[in-house]
Amino acid sequence: MKALVFHGPGQIAWEEVPDAHLVEPTDAVVRMEATTICGTDLHILKGDVPAVTDGRVLGHEGVGTIVAVGGGVQRHAVGDRVVVSCISGCGVCTSCRSQNPSHCLAPEGASGIGWVLGHLVDGTQAELVRVPFADTSLHALPASVPDELAVLLSDILPTGFEIGVQYGHVRPGDTVAVVGAGPVGLAAVATCALHGAAQVVAVDRDRHRLDVAKELGATLSVDARADWKAEIMGVTDGAGVDVAIECVGVPETFTMCTELVRPGGHVANVGVHGRPVELALQDLWIRNITITTGLVNTTTLPMLLRLVAAGKLPVEAFVTHRFALSDVLSAYRTFGSAADTHALKVLMTA
Amino acid sequence: MKALVFHGPGQIAWEEVPDAHLVEPTDAVVRMEATTICGTDLHILKGDVPAVTDGRVLGHEGVGTIVAVGGGVQRHAVGDRVVVSCISGCGVCTSCRSQNPSHCLAPEGASGIGWVLGHLVDGTQAELVRVPFADTSLHALPASVPDELAVLLSDILPTGFEIGVQYGHVRPGDTVAVVGAGPVGLAAVATCALHGAAQVVAVDRDRHRLDVAKELGATLSVDARADWKAEIMGVTDGAGVDVAIECVGVPETFTMCTELVRPGGHVANVGVHGRPVELALQDLWIRNITITTGLVNTTTLPMLLRLVAAGKLPVEAFVTHRFALSDVLSAYRTFGSAADTHALKVLMTA
Repeated sequence: MKALVFHGPGQIAWEEVPDAHLVEPTDAVVRMEATTICGTDLHILKGDVPAVTDGRVLGHEGVGTIVAVGGGVQRHAVGDRVVVSCISGCGVCTSCRSQNPSHCLAPEGASGIGWVLGHLVDGTQAELVRVPFADTSLHALPASVPDELAVLLSDILPTGFEIGVQYGHVRPGDTVAVVGAGPVGLAAVATCALHGAAQVVAVDRDRHRLDVAKELGATLSVDARADWKAEIMGVTDGAGVDVAIECVGVPETFTMCTELVRPGGHVANVGVHGRPVELALQDLWIRNITITTGLVNTTTLPMLLRLVAAGKLPVEAFVTHRFALSDVLSAYRTFGSAADTHALKVLMTA
Repeated sequence: MKALVFHGPGQIAWEEVPDAHLVEPTDAVVRMEATTICGTDLHILKGDVPAVTDGRVLGHEGVGTIVAVGGGVQRHAVGDRVVVSCISGCGVCTSCRSQNPSHCLAPEGASGIGWVLGHLVDGTQAELVRVPFADTSLHALPASVPDELAVLLSDILPTGFEIGVQYGHVRPGDTVAVVGAGPVGLAAVATCALHGAAQVVAVDRDRHRLDVAKELGATLSVDARADWKAEIMGVTDGAGVDVAIECVGVPETFTMCTELVRPGGHVANVGVHGRPVELALQDLWIRNITITTGLVNTTTLPMLLRLVAAGKLPVEAFVTHRFALSDVLSAYRTFGSAADTHALKVLMTA
């Protein structure tokens, strides 16, 4: 089969590799019909994720059809059209049973991390993928949900919702700032309404992304290069926002969030960080704030899928570019130059 | 009247000042019968709290009898024996009505901080004190609760419980680490059982304080100068604690907490910090942890008072030294040299 293989920082190739096949009885093999690229894949390409080694097939998002199932798989069968969760939780360890498959303790996630596809085992940017723990990691798709919406359910919609909106404790009537309007930030914007946010403020340096945020439900867009603090204090009676959701992953935007939040408010960190940040505890100790971090669990994937199927989430704008799967290197180039190409999610189809 | 007056960093005096008197109709004046010193008073003495200016009477904890009430006071009368909350919430602003009087917006807390006694207005280390918002800031005491237990309800018991145990989301069966076994840390230890903690690990450098922690309910004491991480991982199957409560207020102990907590766990910061800390977001972003900070609200004071009155909290060991109120300077010296004197709470009585 053909797959996108990582060969060390900066080096990827679309090349022939052995076919994905069943290893464990809980596995399924899926023929990929659509996949996409995540910001995390760009981190891997930069060498920021050393656990990803030479020869690894990348990708942890996608839609396809099951072509083989192990003897232990109960919920799925050959021929089922499914979306692949970016988290492969065993379903039975302590972490999984406490709704935290992001820290699955099963051998596939040897480090206690449930994200294994395109990380610790071969991933979805391929013609075939072996999916561990198929019963909990695959979700059957209604025919009415097209690939380019279904693919958003593998990672970015659950991530924006669970790690942004849910961990941020967004409540009816809240004012929420989403700092960073890339795909995951836009997913937080698009799902804020599920918790009844009254005002959703999108903050970014990119005018195009801010415009998309407005389409997806942001009530105000703020240029991060302008006086963002004054603008946001202006719409919150000087108190700050109830919830600030960090969707960039650099110290500056994390600190913005701690400066934007009102006393008693929440900062939900969604961004993938490569450096420590200076936390101003000398100011924050007295402010009764809550800071959360997290890798998505995708426990809300079935719920979000129902909403997408019912047309209740504004998700049409996410996929901006389309490629053949075999043209994945072009897709990486387009996605990696998002400031110029205005790429959000790039879809590759078989 | 006589009072303990702050005259700038390092300078305090027990001296004659004008009698405390009613200013607002919601005020009461209380004749102090017992008061104590908080670690925060030592921070003030060091000059760490610049809002405290020359001439301010210190102190935010104590017990006494009401000698005057303003025309707007409904719940209290002259002659009532009361405990003074360290938080003076107006009861009617947005913060107070959302159970956050720590950020009361009324004029007494001009900066949006409900801690005003011994901070922004004159405090309790005095023969008389004016208590703003008497209805919400004073709590009637049953005769059965002696001064030296009642005085713990002004600040340290609610602080350890609300900002440590409650903000830390301690749940039945949890393993909790309390880092720092000073009075507030010991208050967290003493109240952990209210949320059903299975294991309570006290961490400190002071052997004496660790012994007190064991008396108050700690199931394990760990010397912070030894290999604390190995010891704590050893009692948690290598996973880390469910909740780590920081009760010191320096970067090192905060970082200890972030290193001790399991994926999905909580770090509750209780300590008063004077410096920023380096937060290892490059490791923590993926660990699904929650960090909280906060100034106590004392909303649980009435509940804790009922438990103290019923003899259900192990609080007898907190007061270690007793002084006449007029000998408050000796009390400061004893409290300020706790490593030598083994002082926890020092009681000054009229």
